[in-house]
Amino acid sequence: MSARDEPIAELVGLLARLPGIGERTATRLAFHILGEEPGYAEALGAAIGAIHHRVRRCEVCGNYASEARCAVCQDPRRDATVLCAVGRVPDLWAIERSGTFRGRYHVLHGLLAPLEGVGPEQIPLDGLVKRVKDEGIGEVIVATPLSVEGEATALYVAEVLHPLGVQVSRIASGVPHGGELEYTDQVTLARALQARHKI
Amino acid sequence: MSARDEPIAELVGLLARLPGIGERTATRLAFHILGEEPGYAEALGAAIGAIHHRVRRCEVCGNYASEARCAVCQDPRRDATVLCAVGRVPDLWAIERSGTFRGRYHVLHGLLAPLEGVGPEQIPLDGLVKRVKDEGIGEVIVATPLSVEGEATALYVAEVLHPLGVQVSRIASGVPHGGELEYTDQVTLARALQARHKI
Repeated sequence: MSARDEPIAELVGLLARLPGIGERTATRLAFHILGEEPGYAEALGAAIGAIHHRVRRCEVCGNYASEARCAVCQDPRRDATVLCAVGRVPDLWAIERSGTFRGRYHVLHGLLAPLEGVGPEQIPLDGLVKRVKDEGIGEVIVATPLSVEGEATALYVAEVLHPLGVQVSRIASGVPHGGELEYTDQVTLARALQARHKI
Repeated sequence: MSARDEPIAELVGLLARLPGIGERTATRLAFHILGEEPGYAEALGAAIGAIHHRVRRCEVCGNYASEARCAVCQDPRRDATVLCAVGRVPDLWAIERSGTFRGRYHVLHGLLAPLEGVGPEQIPLDGLVKRVKDEGIGEVIVATPLSVEGEATALYVAEVLHPLGVQVSRIASGVPHGGELEYTDQVTLARALQARHKI
């Protein structure tokens, strides 16, 4: 028998399945929820419980959407001739937060990972190819991560799209903004030197 | 218009009200919940939404409980002659985790904080006094924090209980386990020196 009663233990166990949330943090969160007015717990519980029913994939680009098409695809002010291909929806949101891209997106929902058995058949590009053909796309920017998997996926996308005559580009790699050379890894430094530009 | 659809934005906003969870972490958690099977979101949502209805205060000690009495108060193996007075339920759980206390608890649900207008009238001790009188308590260990508020509350509890003839004790203060003297604050070091014991 423990001082922890079943409903709290159950809540802590479920919260501790969230990424970066250990049992200690989960306990703190559970106590916080108990300490707030009940309306908050009810609103949060309802929002979590209903999220899978309220959110679907955009039928055009694969972004999360509350309607058939996501907010980006519905926005007539976005440049319809440029696509940014990303591996995951959170990457799309990160680019949106940067506020510098005015085109549209295509979410691949995965990256090539040959070592884990994820080959081209698991990352079908039919949808992307169809969009390039049908929507008069002039450029596809591949914004997959600068990891082994992200680079492999970028090459794969480029190979598939090149025969269509569309321009395929890759986001730049280099020392991040504010980055100290002293703490920058060798590969990044080598890339930054290779990709140097005149000033 | 943003790439973030309303249901996700609402969920992120609610998650970001949790302690230590900023908007970025909240977004990551929301995506994680969306990436898991729907059953997890439903279980977590239900557990959060129902927590206030499933958890109440133990009628004896003030611990959280799913029945009228908490698991500690229901446990016949606990020493009924020793009470540990704590400020908050999480402190009770922390002591339970240490596994070294076999008595029962009394939760004060607050600490004296004169600077914030919390005086003795906001921390009533009637319940504790009644328990000491009725339950044949031999010792009350005051395990409030070693902060100004916790110390003031400990003195207050001692003053109120002393006339009843019960022994009132205070948890020890000193250098924590594994603590380096170099990084220990002056007050803690002074206390550790004062409370030195023969070896």
